[in-house]
Amino acid sequence: MPTSRKLGRGVAMVGAGMSRFGAFAGKNSRDLFVEAFKEIKKSVDKELDPSLIETLYIGNFSSDQFEHQAHIAPLLADAVGLLPRPATRVEDACASGGVALRQGVMAIASGLYDVVLVGGAEKMTALNTAAVTEALATAADVPYEIPAGFTFPGFYAAMASAYMHRYGMKSKHLMNVAIKNHDNAALNPNAQFGMTIQNWMEGRIASAVKKGKPKPTWSTIWDFLHDESGNPTVAWPLRLFDCSPITDGAAAILLVAEERAHEFTDHPIHIIGSGQASDSALHGRPGLTTIPAAKIAASQAYEMAGVTRDDIRIAEVHDCFTIAEVIASEDLGFFAPGEGFKAAEDGMTARNGAKPINTSGGLKAKGHPVGASGVAQAVEVWKQMRGQAEARQVEMDIPLALTHNVGATGSTCVVHVYERRN
Amino acid sequence: MPTSRKLGRGVAMVGAGMSRFGAFAGKNSRDLFVEAFKEIKKSVDKELDPSLIETLYIGNFSSDQFEHQAHIAPLLADAVGLLPRPATRVEDACASGGVALRQGVMAIASGLYDVVLVGGAEKMTALNTAAVTEALATAADVPYEIPAGFTFPGFYAAMASAYMHRYGMKSKHLMNVAIKNHDNAALNPNAQFGMTIQNWMEGRIASAVKKGKPKPTWSTIWDFLHDESGNPTVAWPLRLFDCSPITDGAAAILLVAEERAHEFTDHPIHIIGSGQASDSALHGRPGLTTIPAAKIAASQAYEMAGVTRDDIRIAEVHDCFTIAEVIASEDLGFFAPGEGFKAAEDGMTARNGAKPINTSGGLKAKGHPVGASGVAQAVEVWKQMRGQAEARQVEMDIPLALTHNVGATGSTCVVHVYERRN
Repeated sequence: MPTSRKLGRGVAMVGAGMSRFGAFAGKNSRDLFVEAFKEIKKSVDKELDPSLIETLYIGNFSSDQFEHQAHIAPLLADAVGLLPRPATRVEDACASGGVALRQGVMAIASGLYDVVLVGGAEKMTALNTAAVTEALATAADVPYEIPAGFTFPGFYAAMASAYMHRYGMKSKHLMNVAIKNHDNAALNPNAQFGMTIQNWMEGRIASAVKKGKPKPTWSTIWDFLHDESGNPTVAWPLRLFDCSPITDGAAAILLVAEERAHEFTDHPIHIIGSGQASDSALHGRPGLTTIPAAKIAASQAYEMAGVTRDDIRIAEVHDCFTIAEVIASEDLGFFAPGEGFKAAEDGMTARNGAKPINTSGGLKAKGHPVGASGVAQAVEVWKQMRGQAEARQVEMDIPLALTHNVGATGSTCVVHVYERRN
Repeated sequence: MPTSRKLGRGVAMVGAGMSRFGAFAGKNSRDLFVEAFKEIKKSVDKELDPSLIETLYIGNFSSDQFEHQAHIAPLLADAVGLLPRPATRVEDACASGGVALRQGVMAIASGLYDVVLVGGAEKMTALNTAAVTEALATAADVPYEIPAGFTFPGFYAAMASAYMHRYGMKSKHLMNVAIKNHDNAALNPNAQFGMTIQNWMEGRIASAVKKGKPKPTWSTIWDFLHDESGNPTVAWPLRLFDCSPITDGAAAILLVAEERAHEFTDHPIHIIGSGQASDSALHGRPGLTTIPAAKIAASQAYEMAGVTRDDIRIAEVHDCFTIAEVIASEDLGFFAPGEGFKAAEDGMTARNGAKPINTSGGLKAKGHPVGASGVAQAVEVWKQMRGQAEARQVEMDIPLALTHNVGATGSTCVVHVYERRN
């Protein structure tokens, strides 16, 4: 098994920013990345001299397919005035952002660089939903899985139904995850869906009335979520509100060698653990109710950080579908196998629960511009750990936090642990 | 400007292998990568225990477009039995392989890993030539350059005609590069075009006779290369033999922490210099006769290695078109601006010249599976420096060598310097 060695030197996050997430006609990856970079500049406590930035790592899943534009790393470097810095794109499907972060950490630990910009960007909405679904399906094991008719909603639906069968979960339990993540996103000004499901339902009712259509009879969000016209089935047992949306967005963080953090801020966030693992695609695995690569990546990250799962106060996890959050909360060791859905039901993962998960709104409601998602997770951790998450700030002190980013159904998983020391 | 710091610890290459390059119906990236991995195992002098390999970096330009398969890094890890090792794809257009190599170097220098597999793979021939040309064009600055009608033969044709205008080169001078690289490829059993241009011409004549067509009147290869039916114009002044082919292929090298090299071989090749730089796409540059990112990357690599251009004995450079080799030989400092084409004419870059370039046959004749090319350059250096290049072995001793890998028209360039110490 791969060893979990220590990094050659410490790495700190000293800035973080993201564009708004959503559907933005007329904006491409470059425009979105420029927005994220502007936010990063605002986030650095002391004056940021961009010429100090020595290299860029960019997480991007497939600008080739979404924008007909490959080789975007130097284009993004150009867009933010960082030529001739080396600019490298990293791709591991929806884990591209988290893996780019890991490369940034290693680039500093290697001694080659002191100041590294890690970004993620994806422009997805120029294609229609069917074309996006097909592009995303290239992250599967294409010759084996696609001829069988699978796309990602189907993969995660298979995982959800296996989990239901094994642990007695009902599909309605998954809705607790969606409700919570929309509640959080309603307090996140950068979220694609900045509204609770209650807001959403009321909007649908108002719209029907306005158009002179029959007024829906939903009186609670549970009516709405159980109604095929409110929350249609995408791939049983997953309904619309179980699925993350198609999103345009970018995010960026600034990493520096630990000993230079003071030049940028008095309140850096240290990256003390990093783990990454690979696995076969879903068709080659012995079970569907856990993601083994997540367990391995988490155990590497915990070991490097010298912490346990219980030390982690908040986590941003990869909820591309609601079932993915449930499984993640178990794979990370927060809850026992089969207990994750109950923890969500009991409010343990809510913003003011014992183990808040996805305070940003998660991929589910903040949005999921795939290559940017892993970086945006670090942006949320940055804000929460420094007490800058405004209306969605968790109340407890957060000395330790975690991010968990998955590629495809878990062929890649990358986990990071963050520490605030003052 | 970015500094050129030292690596945290030394890195050595202890194995190298490649698949045959060519057009292989029925083989995908995975099949080709397995072939390269088998060759790497043979190349390691002592017994290789694959379980020692801790992580993989994969250079790949666009399996998304060529094979409708993204997220290939974990699939390649699976194919060679290396799960659950972290597997990361790196993309910087045609420099993807060289940039993957650089990530492998940094991963070891970071202290996180001791044994790293760097691979490159591309399967291009499933698409027809027009579709490949369009896919490659996504490496340009698409919104600015593609509406103007450019594809890569056009970009390099513009560079060639600017160079001709500035320095008085004639298009025939470029043919010296093609002739030399085919001469070298004829001695490389892995080359796509394992034949001299003389062989090629004779084959064309024999084929015409066999088919009962009029016998071509070419008596020398110069007749053949100047004849539109032998060597048709692709984009003036570039003709068919100025252009690298469309290729399927894979390559891989094994990197280890210097202090552990002895476990694998008594004759490691040390990677002592690494440089990378970015630039705007061609439309944004002040001139067309040089690639500024190559000069920057080379100067970083020379500085890190503590060597000068004159110390380099052989180089594998990025000859996607013949003009690219001429410009590279100047950007690397081997020849003064405007002198590179004369050096090729004078035989200085031939296998037994003063500064042999592309002894492998280069991208031009060995083939150019884009994401694999930067890694395959390191494979050639490995063989030449260790005296294992068989019929194409250069005669002089090679303590220092260099590889030069370009993305697009030079938006990315990455350069490495290699040392043999015994």
